[in-house]
Amino acid sequence: MSERKYAILGTGALGGFYGAKLQKVGLDVHFLLKSDYEQVSQNGLIVESKDGDFTLPQVNAYNDVAKMPKCDVVVVALKTTQNHLLSKLLPPVVKDDGVVLVLQNGLGIEEEIADIVDKVHVIGGLCFLCSNKIGAGHIRHLDYGHITLGEYAAGYSTIGITDRMVQIAHDFQTAEISIELAEDLLLGRWKKLVWNIPYNGLSVVLNARTDELMADTYTRTLVKQLMYEVKAGANSMGRTIPDSFIHTMLDYTMKMKPYRTSMKIDYDECRPLEVEAIVGNPLRKAQALGVNLPQISSLYHQLKFLDGRN
Amino acid sequence: MSERKYAILGTGALGGFYGAKLQKVGLDVHFLLKSDYEQVSQNGLIVESKDGDFTLPQVNAYNDVAKMPKCDVVVVALKTTQNHLLSKLLPPVVKDDGVVLVLQNGLGIEEEIADIVDKVHVIGGLCFLCSNKIGAGHIRHLDYGHITLGEYAAGYSTIGITDRMVQIAHDFQTAEISIELAEDLLLGRWKKLVWNIPYNGLSVVLNARTDELMADTYTRTLVKQLMYEVKAGANSMGRTIPDSFIHTMLDYTMKMKPYRTSMKIDYDECRPLEVEAIVGNPLRKAQALGVNLPQISSLYHQLKFLDGRN
Repeated sequence: MSERKYAILGTGALGGFYGAKLQKVGLDVHFLLKSDYEQVSQNGLIVESKDGDFTLPQVNAYNDVAKMPKCDVVVVALKTTQNHLLSKLLPPVVKDDGVVLVLQNGLGIEEEIADIVDKVHVIGGLCFLCSNKIGAGHIRHLDYGHITLGEYAAGYSTIGITDRMVQIAHDFQTAEISIELAEDLLLGRWKKLVWNIPYNGLSVVLNARTDELMADTYTRTLVKQLMYEVKAGANSMGRTIPDSFIHTMLDYTMKMKPYRTSMKIDYDECRPLEVEAIVGNPLRKAQALGVNLPQISSLYHQLKFLDGRN
Repeated sequence: MSERKYAILGTGALGGFYGAKLQKVGLDVHFLLKSDYEQVSQNGLIVESKDGDFTLPQVNAYNDVAKMPKCDVVVVALKTTQNHLLSKLLPPVVKDDGVVLVLQNGLGIEEEIADIVDKVHVIGGLCFLCSNKIGAGHIRHLDYGHITLGEYAAGYSTIGITDRMVQIAHDFQTAEISIELAEDLLLGRWKKLVWNIPYNGLSVVLNARTDELMADTYTRTLVKQLMYEVKAGANSMGRTIPDSFIHTMLDYTMKMKPYRTSMKIDYDECRPLEVEAIVGNPLRKAQALGVNLPQISSLYHQLKFLDGRN
């Protein structure tokens, strides 16, 4: 059994799900909570999952990082709109040679975290998970759950597959979480944006589900144009997304069940949107390298307006 | 007194207003109506105007162009979404050497009309009018009313100020309608698009009034970027819009009273949007000349989706 101690910062639909899976197989997990702290410290976590429901009546719950033990792996499972808190949250809870595992969408987060905790290793995780928090400490896992891990190195240079990645993958696989290891975190992040930018963005601006965006010839064209701009953005940072990947994403979404994106759910629930991580950062990265992404820029400005008004 | 006979195709907020003003000063005006025909043929037109209310108890009303006399000047005052009807509406009503006066928004309409009635002169009119139809044959004029006239020549080459323009201007001025004559219709059309594309488009997509679009830094930036794309579009057709004009439009809109654009009103009332004339045609004109307008293209695709769903 692993000796690694895990911290979960953000015990919601994602952090609560993965953290509970890790604890269920005997790993030492410590959960940071905010509004659900009282409930979870008294009653633990409930996970309803298509892979089998389970309950953890007793978990290590905290409402303050200062009370948490130093951990080997600190999982960042907050919404990126909370990332301004990380400079206070991370230093007390991560061991000197530990790992911060960023299970968030968007671009550039690992870089920000590496600036906060400079002796720590930063690993990015791209999650394909469909789950909701349906009450305090109560998570409903609907589908998927796969994570692709890639380790960050300065300037997003390619570092390959490290021992740390292998060790963490082992723990997650023990917990029956499907893991893939990627040699190039940055390429993985840009590839995920191929889906996230058009569908998250347009679903909010046009008040539409994925199936509506794909059924209409005009939005289908716009989605594709946006995907090609993401490809151009990746290219500006030296990463190549093949056209075949774009076609696969379009086909895959055509065949998907009608889906309300996470950004649309946030918008409908009047929560702040993850615009900066998902749209703003990729846009600025490319612009800084002299590549203009005008349609993503349009979407960014529209989303910022709607987010501000919401 | 002018001998010119006028036809008004589309007796709504705009055609009804200008036509009534012309008849009021004694000109011979013939109105084509559809849903309001019964009401107007029996009771005439009522105009409430900031410049003075008036009633025309008796007007020449028609529900069929075949019953109308041949006219010297046929005013097209339909929404552009009805322009597929023009190939049937125009030939019966316009004299051989007559004029079609297009009081519509957008680009490329004169060209389409010149193809329909090839021995007829086509003049474009850019209207700055704020009026509503508040009931059958009942128009409320709120503000403005100015028209800029420019004559169309094949390929939008500059034809200067013609006698026909001067004669029509005389009739309109007699009717107390402010008129300006433009030597370059195409430049005038593109300049009007500097305002129409961003504000009409974004007001629908973002469900916002002009003041909201200008109060937010992100949409203000996007409006400006769209204006510069309109400038690039004009440039592709050899017309130069000075930057100072863009700044004037921004300042002017900043100072305007909160305004719901005509496209937004159409959208809210579930009427078809004038997307093709105002956004699609300019986009395609520029594209045909090798100039891509990506942010206008985004807006176009978004509007087509919303229009289709509405």
